[in-house]
Amino acid sequence: MDVSQQRLRTDLETNATFGAIDAETGRGRTVLAGTEANRAARDRFVERCEEAGLSVDVDAVGNIAAAWTPASADVDAAPVAAGSHLDSVPEGGIFDGPLGTYGALEAVRALRDGGFEPDRPIAVVCFTEEEGTRFGGGMLGSAVATGHRSVDDALALTDGEGTSLGDALESIGYRGEGRLDASAWDSFLELHVEQDTRLESAGVPVGVVTTITGISQSTARLVGEANHAGATPMDERRDALAAASEFVLELERAGRERALAGENTAVATVGGCDVRPNATNVVPGAAELGVDVRDVEHETMTAILERAERCLERIGDERGVETSFARALALEPAPMSDRCRRAFESGAADAGVEAASMHSGAAHDAMRVSRVTDAGMLFAPSRDGISHNPREWTDWEDCATATRVLAVALAQLSSE
Amino acid sequence: MDVSQQRLRTDLETNATFGAIDAETGRGRTVLAGTEANRAARDRFVERCEEAGLSVDVDAVGNIAAAWTPASADVDAAPVAAGSHLDSVPEGGIFDGPLGTYGALEAVRALRDGGFEPDRPIAVVCFTEEEGTRFGGGMLGSAVATGHRSVDDALALTDGEGTSLGDALESIGYRGEGRLDASAWDSFLELHVEQDTRLESAGVPVGVVTTITGISQSTARLVGEANHAGATPMDERRDALAAASEFVLELERAGRERALAGENTAVATVGGCDVRPNATNVVPGAAELGVDVRDVEHETMTAILERAERCLERIGDERGVETSFARALALEPAPMSDRCRRAFESGAADAGVEAASMHSGAAHDAMRVSRVTDAGMLFAPSRDGISHNPREWTDWEDCATATRVLAVALAQLSSE
Repeated sequence: MDVSQQRLRTDLETNATFGAIDAETGRGRTVLAGTEANRAARDRFVERCEEAGLSVDVDAVGNIAAAWTPASADVDAAPVAAGSHLDSVPEGGIFDGPLGTYGALEAVRALRDGGFEPDRPIAVVCFTEEEGTRFGGGMLGSAVATGHRSVDDALALTDGEGTSLGDALESIGYRGEGRLDASAWDSFLELHVEQDTRLESAGVPVGVVTTITGISQSTARLVGEANHAGATPMDERRDALAAASEFVLELERAGRERALAGENTAVATVGGCDVRPNATNVVPGAAELGVDVRDVEHETMTAILERAERCLERIGDERGVETSFARALALEPAPMSDRCRRAFESGAADAGVEAASMHSGAAHDAMRVSRVTDAGMLFAPSRDGISHNPREWTDWEDCATATRVLAVALAQLSSE
Repeated sequence: MDVSQQRLRTDLETNATFGAIDAETGRGRTVLAGTEANRAARDRFVERCEEAGLSVDVDAVGNIAAAWTPASADVDAAPVAAGSHLDSVPEGGIFDGPLGTYGALEAVRALRDGGFEPDRPIAVVCFTEEEGTRFGGGMLGSAVATGHRSVDDALALTDGEGTSLGDALESIGYRGEGRLDASAWDSFLELHVEQDTRLESAGVPVGVVTTITGISQSTARLVGEANHAGATPMDERRDALAAASEFVLELERAGRERALAGENTAVATVGGCDVRPNATNVVPGAAELGVDVRDVEHETMTAILERAERCLERIGDERGVETSFARALALEPAPMSDRCRRAFESGAADAGVEAASMHSGAAHDAMRVSRVTDAGMLFAPSRDGISHNPREWTDWEDCATATRVLAVALAQLSSE
C-alpha cells in the first residue's frame, strides 16, 4: 500500500488556499456551499480525480462522485464509496471535510499504484453543504443522496439573502443531473478529524467509530414580564432570565447524571441564550434558549429531554413564567456497521498501528448514509481537540496513517 | 388654589404630539435630547412659560429655568424650584417627565391666579437628557446643574453617530449660556409618575418619596471555553453560560434575602445577558451579564455587591471559568429632605387627599439635586405600574390632584 503523505499534503494545502482567511494563529478558510471559494475547491477536486483516472459525476444538488472502475471490477456490482465534504463553517479549519475527501482520493490512488484489483468499483464522494452554514440543516447532500430529503426541497432552500441552493449551484456550475443514490452502495467509509482529544490523550493515531451520537435540538422559550429593575420588588417579578438560569443548570445536571450512569457519551447543552429587552436596568421579560442533547442511546436522550420538559414546566409554574419547549431537530443515534469497523481494524493491523474504539459526538454524512447502507467512520487525531477554528490541526503523518488504514479498508470491502 | 385640570391636560396633550409614535394601544412618543422633536417640545414649553409671565433662561447644556418673581418676592432670595424633564426613552410614554415639568408650570399659574404672594422667586425647571438614551449616563442636565459634571464634559458627549451634545443643542437652538446652579436654590420639588403599582394598589392618589434608592450597575464577565456541544464530555467543559446561570440565581437569592430582611426596598437584577458564540451546538465560551443592585440603604447595596463578587469568584474557581466584576455606575441612596416631605404632606392635607410614604426605586433628577440642596419628590399613580411604554397612563384627575399638592408645597416653601 503506497499512500503518499506528500501527495495528500499537497492536495490538502492547495485546497486550503480556497477561501483562505487571515488568522492570527493556524490556517483558516471560509468555504460556504455554492460560493466562488466552493467552486474553486470543487474544480480542483474534480481535476485531481480526473487526473487519477476516475470518472466524475455531479448530481442535481452538487454531490460529486468520482468512480474508479478498473478492469477487475464488475461494473454492475454495488460500489464501495468513501469521502466527506469540502465546505467549511465560517473561519473554519483546513482538515474538517477535506481530509476525508482527499484521503479517499489518495487511498484510491495508492490502491491503483499498488496494482490492487478490486472486485467492485470504488467511488470517491464529496457531499454538498455538510456544515449547513449557508442553507441550514446540515448534512444536506447526504440527506438527498439517502432519500431523506427530496432534490426539489433541497434546491429550494434559501440563504440569508434569499438565494436558493439551486441558483447558487447553477452560478458555480455544479447543478448537475439526477440524484446520487447512496442506497445503491455496498458500503461507505468516512475519514474525518476527531474534533476531540481522546486520540491525542491516548496517544493512538486512529479511532474507529462505534456509533454516531443521536442529536436532538430544541428551543425553550420563557415569557415573564419585563419591568423596571428599580421599581419592581423582588417578590413581584416574573424574571425570564432567572427562570432560564434554573433551566440551564437543571439540564446540565441531567446531562452530567446520565453521562456518569453510562459511558460518558451523554451530553446536554444550552448553547444559545437570547434575552429581551436585554438591558441592565430592566427585569428580563423573555428568554429563548437553544438546547442540544446527544447520546449514543435513544433511551438516554429521551430521558434527558423528558426531564428537561418537566423541569421547564415546574420552573414556569413556580415563577409565573410561561414556557414552551419545541423540538426542532431529531437525529437518532447511528451505529456504524460491524463490517466497516472490522475493515478499519484490519487496516490498522496492516499499518501496524493501534486503533481505539470510540463514539462520535458530532454528526457526519456517514450518519445519514448509515440509514441506507453499511457505513463506517475513521477518526484522525485533532491537536488539542480544536475544530471549526483556524487552529484545527492534524499532523501530516497522522493524515497519512489514517489514509493508509482507509485504503486497506477499501481494499477489503471491495474484495468481499 | 385653582389648579386647572383642563389647562394642564391641554399642555400635556400638546406636548404628546411632539415625537408622537403610532402605538397599538396607548400614546407613545420618542423625544431624544437635541432632536427636532425635542426642539418642538422645548419651544412650546418656553412659549407657555412666557405666556404665564415667567422669565426664561437657557444654560450652556440646554437646561431651562423659567422664573416667577412677582413683586412680593425678594429677588435676592434663593428661589424654590420645581420641574422635571421633557425628553423620553424611545417609544416612551407621555407622562414620564412632562407631568413634572408642566405640573410645575400649572402650579405656578394656579398660585398666581389665586393671588398668592411668595417671599421667594419660584423657578420652573426642565433638565436636559434625563433619560440618557442619546448621550448616555442619564440625569445629565441635573448632573451639570449640581456640579457633578462639568459643562465642557457634558457638551463633549457624543451619540452613536458621533454628534456631540454641544452640536445637537446648537442645531436646535438650545445651547444657551452659563450654568444653572441648583445649589443656589432654597429647595427643589419634582412631581413624577410612580412607574410602579403601590399607589394604585393602595388606592391613594399621591406618594411622598422618603428616599431615592441608590443604584449600582456592574458588568460580570465569565470566560470559559467554547467547544463542540457533541464532542465535549460533560466533565471536560468550562461552560460560561452554566456558570453565569449560577450567578444569576445567587444574585437573585441575595436580593430576595435582603428585601425580606429590610422593608422590601432592596432589588438585585441581572437584566442583560450576552453569550458567545451563542449557537445551539456550541458550549458557550463567554458570557457577559449586566447587573443592577439598588436599595435605600448604602450598607445593603454593599452587602449584596460583596456577596455577588464572592460568589462569582467561587463559581469561577469551581468551574475553571475566568471571571471579573466591574462596577460601572454607583449612585448613593438619596434621602429626600424633611422640609420638602412636610411641604407635600401639607399639600395633601390641604387637597383633602391621603398621601402614602414610599421610596423611589428609579433614579430621578431630584436625586442629583438632593446632593446640593433640599429636594423632594411626589408621585402620581401609574396605571398597572407601566412606564417607558406607550401604555404608560395616569388619569387626568390624578395629574391635577398631584399638581394641587405640588402647588401648596411650593407655596409653603416659598413663604418660609
